Amino acid sequence: MAELTGKSSIGFQSSAQSESTIFGVNPATGEKLKPGYAAVSETELNRAVELSGEAFKVFGKSSGRERAALLRKIADNIESVGDELAVLTPQETGLPEPRIRMETGRTCAQLRLFASVAEEGSWVGARIDHADQDRAPIPKPDTRSMKKPLGPVAVFCASNFPLAFSVAGGDTASALAAGCPVIVKAHHSHPGTAELVGQAVLRAVKECSFPEGTFSLLYGPGRETGQSLLRHPLIKAAGFTGSREGGQALMKIAAERADPIPFYAEMSSINPVFILSGAMAERGEALAAGLHGSMTMGVGQFCTNPGLTIVDNNSNLEPFISKLTDLVCSSPSATMLNSGIGSAYDSGANSFNKNKAVETLARGEAGEGDCQAEVLLFRTTSDSFSNDDSLGAELFGPSTLIVTHDNKDKMLALARSLEGQLTATVHGTDADLVANGDLLEVLETKAGRVLINGFPTGVEVCHSMVHGGPFPATSDGRSTSVGTNAIERFSRDVCYQSFPDSLLPRELQEDNPLKIRRMIDGVII
Amino acid sequence: MAELTGKSSIGFQSSAQSESTIFGVNPATGEKLKPGYAAVSETELNRAVELSGEAFKVFGKSSGRERAALLRKIADNIESVGDELAVLTPQETGLPEPRIRMETGRTCAQLRLFASVAEEGSWVGARIDHADQDRAPIPKPDTRSMKKPLGPVAVFCASNFPLAFSVAGGDTASALAAGCPVIVKAHHSHPGTAELVGQAVLRAVKECSFPEGTFSLLYGPGRETGQSLLRHPLIKAAGFTGSREGGQALMKIAAERADPIPFYAEMSSINPVFILSGAMAERGEALAAGLHGSMTMGVGQFCTNPGLTIVDNNSNLEPFISKLTDLVCSSPSATMLNSGIGSAYDSGANSFNKNKAVETLARGEAGEGDCQAEVLLFRTTSDSFSNDDSLGAELFGPSTLIVTHDNKDKMLALARSLEGQLTATVHGTDADLVANGDLLEVLETKAGRVLINGFPTGVEVCHSMVHGGPFPATSDGRSTSVGTNAIERFSRDVCYQSFPDSLLPRELQEDNPLKIRRMIDGVII
Repeated sequence: MAELTGKSSIGFQSSAQSESTIFGVNPATGEKLKPGYAAVSETELNRAVELSGEAFKVFGKSSGRERAALLRKIADNIESVGDELAVLTPQETGLPEPRIRMETGRTCAQLRLFASVAEEGSWVGARIDHADQDRAPIPKPDTRSMKKPLGPVAVFCASNFPLAFSVAGGDTASALAAGCPVIVKAHHSHPGTAELVGQAVLRAVKECSFPEGTFSLLYGPGRETGQSLLRHPLIKAAGFTGSREGGQALMKIAAERADPIPFYAEMSSINPVFILSGAMAERGEALAAGLHGSMTMGVGQFCTNPGLTIVDNNSNLEPFISKLTDLVCSSPSATMLNSGIGSAYDSGANSFNKNKAVETLARGEAGEGDCQAEVLLFRTTSDSFSNDDSLGAELFGPSTLIVTHDNKDKMLALARSLEGQLTATVHGTDADLVANGDLLEVLETKAGRVLINGFPTGVEVCHSMVHGGPFPATSDGRSTSVGTNAIERFSRDVCYQSFPDSLLPRELQEDNPLKIRRMIDGVII
Repeated sequence: MAELTGKSSIGFQSSAQSESTIFGVNPATGEKLKPGYAAVSETELNRAVELSGEAFKVFGKSSGRERAALLRKIADNIESVGDELAVLTPQETGLPEPRIRMETGRTCAQLRLFASVAEEGSWVGARIDHADQDRAPIPKPDTRSMKKPLGPVAVFCASNFPLAFSVAGGDTASALAAGCPVIVKAHHSHPGTAELVGQAVLRAVKECSFPEGTFSLLYGPGRETGQSLLRHPLIKAAGFTGSREGGQALMKIAAERADPIPFYAEMSSINPVFILSGAMAERGEALAAGLHGSMTMGVGQFCTNPGLTIVDNNSNLEPFISKLTDLVCSSPSATMLNSGIGSAYDSGANSFNKNKAVETLARGEAGEGDCQAEVLLFRTTSDSFSNDDSLGAELFGPSTLIVTHDNKDKMLALARSLEGQLTATVHGTDADLVANGDLLEVLETKAGRVLINGFPTGVEVCHSMVHGGPFPATSDGRSTSVGTNAIERFSRDVCYQSFPDSLLPRELQEDNPLKIRRMIDGVII
């Protein structure tokens, strides 16, 4: 086992100027885990950001191939501590070992996918418009543009993906691939995991001879450390995965800086699932089984958890409800990530329980302790849902609220009333889908991803993925935090006018030394 | 001459519920122009936005070819009133007829360029990742993504480009090309021009049988009408060209909405021009002539006006300074766009005049009246510049501030201290440029466009143009307001998972009926 130090990494320097105040806690047992971690001082934080600014001068100019080597080395180094993560991370998160092994694999695959994007190089969107000396009334100059990295990026780790959305997760991978140094704010809920992965990243930075400051890892409370980091003038963008409250507080800070910066927060979503009547008639029990699997996966702690299920009262609901009720009732309790998330789930569930418009259809087995979640199934009507905004709030955990409606108009009205979502799903027969094109049209204005006859959990890491969606699903509905388009978040186009060929970035040189796709005089070649 | 009504266009309806309070004024004569325009009421504004929301349901689904036809028809219709604009717009703006004819041509060329982008269709960035049923541990679903229009867009007209950045300017052209209905807030400084162009757009909307609400044109004060428009929940994005103060006020509103929206403001820039010593020695007089032409073009009322010229004290500055002084002294006064801009220029110039660290090197001929600008040439040192932030403020008008420095370190320090800019320019011999790679590296982090041996005025409308740059040059340094990439501002990616082929947008259907460029399983084809 690599030794955990309880320290932040300020560039290559392990540092802990204050006493340890941040301890991981095993949510299954309540055991306080060692070592404790010290919150960074202002001096340490500033030093990390300054190193990052210096590192950008070198790292921002590195080639895609060099950055690809770094990303692959990070993946290799994480895999080399895979067995240690498989022991440590379950202790910190309550997530079972197979999940952690799968998430480790996903994290490394993601790093390698961004390596391939950086290495291939066409992501920079190079465009060349040649000069035209003969154009009247004035000659046209030579202009060329491409995406360049923004500068140092702050990454805020998520509690619910200790690997894939944390220290070396999607935000870090895409920022490094773009050429931006990264400063990570570790999540207090899995500090040891953060350190193990952080060490793997730092070894890779050294092995690839990138400068100190290319990566730093800071511990500290979200409000102080996180906000100070986001306010630092040298930070040029940030990525965040977490709660709506936390995300909105940081959005405000990013917008109120002397120079506002792009801030990408993936915040909250209830991921509506519409079951149309033909599908309900054809396969009610199978839909119940699929929904139950999706809503309980990862103890319901996925941002794509199907928290809202909309069904037609005129369908024969009995097989669906009956099967789902049975499955929920026989669901074991499970350990949530930490006591904060556990008590938020209890409190949200209590609000639903107390709400006279909501029927609690089924409860899974009850567990003991702060962090044990029981699976819950609620039901209300579309009229009640539309009259009570609280029913549209995210209940983060293994539950869904079934909303029954009496006719298509009410279903469409409900769809139109939804806030921005990460996903929206429709289950239907071919005939259902043809008859509900209007529903699909509404949903694509509401969500980053629309699914047919599937379930929203399980986000593919691929080129066409959009893990985004209009506010409040994210802070910036134009972006995605999963999939290769995520790299664009950390870049901006720069135009070079009348540059001598030798002074141009290689991506824009006339003979295309990197052999990338470019738009030349309006044509993609 | 088409009849001017003095009314807003709420969709196809001319409307003026209140009395006329907005009058164009001929800045050359002070003459109040007719007709007067009424500010829209809240009812009128809401009606326009609601129509826009309804129109989006149809317009947002239109094909690129249909939108291209609209954009071309708008261009045709504007050209058909070209003679009328050539008479009216100079009266409202003080800009000479040839400039208006050229700007009309540029505006129509821009509309047609966006037509070609919409028609060609590849701008949507379609991506397809096929399903893989055999993948372990779970099958990969079919996912496909493309850019979709955001919804109704508010466009705020600029004073300094009554055509190219106004009613049917770059923001409107790119938003319509993307599939977003547009609501324009006319600029009070050229209301008649706005109406003439607005009528041309509305005729095109009717001729192409697009729904009412695809376009509306509103008159009213910026603070009330503009802010109400930006606050309306149905507005999904906005474009603005104007002052830093106005842009920042609107940025705040966009960020503080219940659902924050993308707001693209192009605000202020002093467009530094660095003249390196070799170039100064080789062609001081020619540089003076070029700089004089650029700083006085359009009475210095371009966002790319070279307001800051950085030169090396160790160069032989005499031929450059002497020539530039002569040119400035013999420059006639010229009419600025309106009295607000005229008095802001006077007031800014007075601050420079009063500043003990600034020497007024030369003044052009003085003119009479509120709107007459004299060409001004100032000089200071890099030490003074770095000690006084007020010297880096934009002075909107025909002037430049020459900053002399004693060595390269001071030049680099000045470059590093600059705020975000639309452009940065370097004049140098080959040897200068090789020796100043570090300067170029700093400048590309500061500006949207970096020029070598040119002048920043004259922004090409082409595929590779970036008319953007880090805050405060714009509100969002990732975007451009000129060039075909501007279309991306008004779109977001949507992912379609496991859709039957017939329900997919045509851009994503398997057999590629639109024959666009797409990324298929990671490869651009």
